[in-house]
Amino acid sequence: MKAINVGLLGIGTVGGGTYTVLKRNAEEISRRAGRPIRITMVADKNLELARSVTGGEVALTDDAFAVVSNPEIDIVVELIGGYGIARELVMKAIENGKHVVTANKALLAVHGNEIFSAAQKKGVMVAFEAAVAGGIPIIKALREGLTANRIEWLAGIINGTTNFILSEMRDKGLPFAEVLKEAQALGYAEADPTFDIEGVDAAHKATIMSAIAFGIPMQFDKAYVEGISKLDAVDIAYAEQLGYRIKLLGIARKRDSGVELRVHPTLIPAKRLIANVEGAMNAVLVQADAVGATLYYGKGAGAEPTASAVIADLVDVTRLHTADPEHRVPHLAFQPDQVQALPVLPIEEVITSYYLRMRVADKPGVLADITRILADSDISIEALIQKEAAEGESHTDIIMLTHQTVERDANAAIGRIEALPVVQGQVTKLRMESL
Amino acid sequence: MKAINVGLLGIGTVGGGTYTVLKRNAEEISRRAGRPIRITMVADKNLELARSVTGGEVALTDDAFAVVSNPEIDIVVELIGGYGIARELVMKAIENGKHVVTANKALLAVHGNEIFSAAQKKGVMVAFEAAVAGGIPIIKALREGLTANRIEWLAGIINGTTNFILSEMRDKGLPFAEVLKEAQALGYAEADPTFDIEGVDAAHKATIMSAIAFGIPMQFDKAYVEGISKLDAVDIAYAEQLGYRIKLLGIARKRDSGVELRVHPTLIPAKRLIANVEGAMNAVLVQADAVGATLYYGKGAGAEPTASAVIADLVDVTRLHTADPEHRVPHLAFQPDQVQALPVLPIEEVITSYYLRMRVADKPGVLADITRILADSDISIEALIQKEAAEGESHTDIIMLTHQTVERDANAAIGRIEALPVVQGQVTKLRMESL
Repeated sequence: MKAINVGLLGIGTVGGGTYTVLKRNAEEISRRAGRPIRITMVADKNLELARSVTGGEVALTDDAFAVVSNPEIDIVVELIGGYGIARELVMKAIENGKHVVTANKALLAVHGNEIFSAAQKKGVMVAFEAAVAGGIPIIKALREGLTANRIEWLAGIINGTTNFILSEMRDKGLPFAEVLKEAQALGYAEADPTFDIEGVDAAHKATIMSAIAFGIPMQFDKAYVEGISKLDAVDIAYAEQLGYRIKLLGIARKRDSGVELRVHPTLIPAKRLIANVEGAMNAVLVQADAVGATLYYGKGAGAEPTASAVIADLVDVTRLHTADPEHRVPHLAFQPDQVQALPVLPIEEVITSYYLRMRVADKPGVLADITRILADSDISIEALIQKEAAEGESHTDIIMLTHQTVERDANAAIGRIEALPVVQGQVTKLRMESL
Repeated sequence: MKAINVGLLGIGTVGGGTYTVLKRNAEEISRRAGRPIRITMVADKNLELARSVTGGEVALTDDAFAVVSNPEIDIVVELIGGYGIARELVMKAIENGKHVVTANKALLAVHGNEIFSAAQKKGVMVAFEAAVAGGIPIIKALREGLTANRIEWLAGIINGTTNFILSEMRDKGLPFAEVLKEAQALGYAEADPTFDIEGVDAAHKATIMSAIAFGIPMQFDKAYVEGISKLDAVDIAYAEQLGYRIKLLGIARKRDSGVELRVHPTLIPAKRLIANVEGAMNAVLVQADAVGATLYYGKGAGAEPTASAVIADLVDVTRLHTADPEHRVPHLAFQPDQVQALPVLPIEEVITSYYLRMRVADKPGVLADITRILADSDISIEALIQKEAAEGESHTDIIMLTHQTVERDANAAIGRIEALPVVQGQVTKLRMESL
């Protein structure tokens, strides 16, 4: 059968991996897809790099628009990243009637509604398995594997950099700044790690998953995003004493009034499988009404794991590119006219449990004052540690875990606790999920 | 759009779950599938049961053949089980040009080649997500999510009954027979538990996974099948001391000369995520060349988890039932003319590591004799425990873990060890995988 011609935009880490795997496993992939899938044109600003990766076997250009307007190209693979030129190229490819495969989570989380709407009108596919959790087929699981279910919530370790840092902080008892340097030296963190450590990358991915899980539009601008750069190693240690691990989770939960969409460091019970996902690995836990909990685990980044997802999309698109759109899986899992405008709830309306740490004067009645404030706010305490004051110190730590409450109420109670003269400085608050 | 009419064969546990979930989530499912999917006819020998589940809303019959030859039915869901009447019904449905969804692993593992070949000729789909690991979308992951990869091996906890029994044996230190009774009382094991505890059910599922992972025919009759009924609680305890858990794994590994396809109790490092899959839960670990290791975890049985998989297949089939076959995913992941007749290797040719336990006389030179035999066979020892003889006893236990070797060589060495006069009785041999 006729080969499928693919145009590759960007031959960096993932682009190079895609080229390599598609070539190495060409036979295996054709045996599945029913026809060869070959990259026939590559665009990259660095033509020398492109030449060294491809060995000059394909047409090279430094003008990506030459690929998206080449009539010989059936599918455009966008691996440039970012919202700028990538957006123009994807929109142009769609306009030219080309199917698109992309690993660009930032682009989809921010401009996805526009992109999928254009693709819908033009009758082309935009596939994005590689945009979330690298090589784990989580998009396919959510869009196709769990179609019987009402998905209730999902929680994912979807950023390898931060999971590596948190694993190291716990293992070695080191502070954030020191582990970040180590991660940068090992290539687990970028020179400018902001998008990873501040939770933005995880929020992009959580936004995409929330859309396909619940049938809602992309609402990245409404997501609550809190990273790990302010996380204190002492809280990791206290959490451990209480039987919890701290992970940066991307969480999406459907409630009657709207959707919770949030990324933040989260205490989770150490016994849970997902709590034991260490290093740069990713995992997504999905709770749905019929199947219950399912978990998907694997490498969330890297050349070949991400290429695995890009190529799986290429096979899917190859299979369906001549089929009429009604036979295809809808881009966002739900039929385009069935997307619901369910709002993302403000963080103050989120319902969760909390870990609170406070520095208090070591004298009688302090605990009574604090627990009274919580009781008055209807916040019940699940566990509490009061440390003995160290020799010669007048203050000590209280750590407590609360039951579920609305964040607004928790914040109000924390404000009143901080106002107590016996409480020194601010209360450290971390969210906690039993999963 | 026109509704899809489904005929249900068998309304027991899974059939009832399918009926319930399809009704409860009708809106959510239509929003995804683009049209209603409804069960319009149910066949069951127990008409009273069928009436009580369906509330008399659909046509009922005790003649399953009336469903497969009803021209109004688009998709037949076979949930009767077994190789007998189920095979006739599935073949008849295919002959009548109907698409089939089935949860019947025994049928597919034993008669799959015949069934898929008939379906291929007739241009109909036979979908079977529910046949392996219940609600976990592992068939979809293997067939579609990992198409870029050469799959190297997979190992799964794919029988909930045995995993529950093993978890309980370890937790409570109880013998197999006692825990089996408990499992039967709790409904985790059937009155006749043979298929589960002897590994036959797991072998059916491993056979199906091996076919779609490697592009080979179903070869259930060549699978090596060993259950847990002879497993001694003492080996679970010793394994734990050495940092291992014992799980009943279904393993399929591709080697140059053929495929390893085997089910047996297996020592795996306790730190691995899959070692911590407890109770009746299932998990499948897949190693592939591009993506590396991925793991899929969830409920492997039960009414609604299995219904989740049945309905996911219904949505897939609904989407593609009017598309030409070239646009569909091949039944067994690879194009029908691309299936390779790679043989299943006999167990003697399997390469793995071993746990060996033997009862030996407590006197000098014994260990030297035993280790000499292993050294002569080129089998190296990774770990060894020699217990102190109990007060007043003349014999003691030696437990050792070997490095990888061919099973034939391991068996020969074990034979020579058993022939030593200082060795009492037989050597207990368990296989071990580092995963």
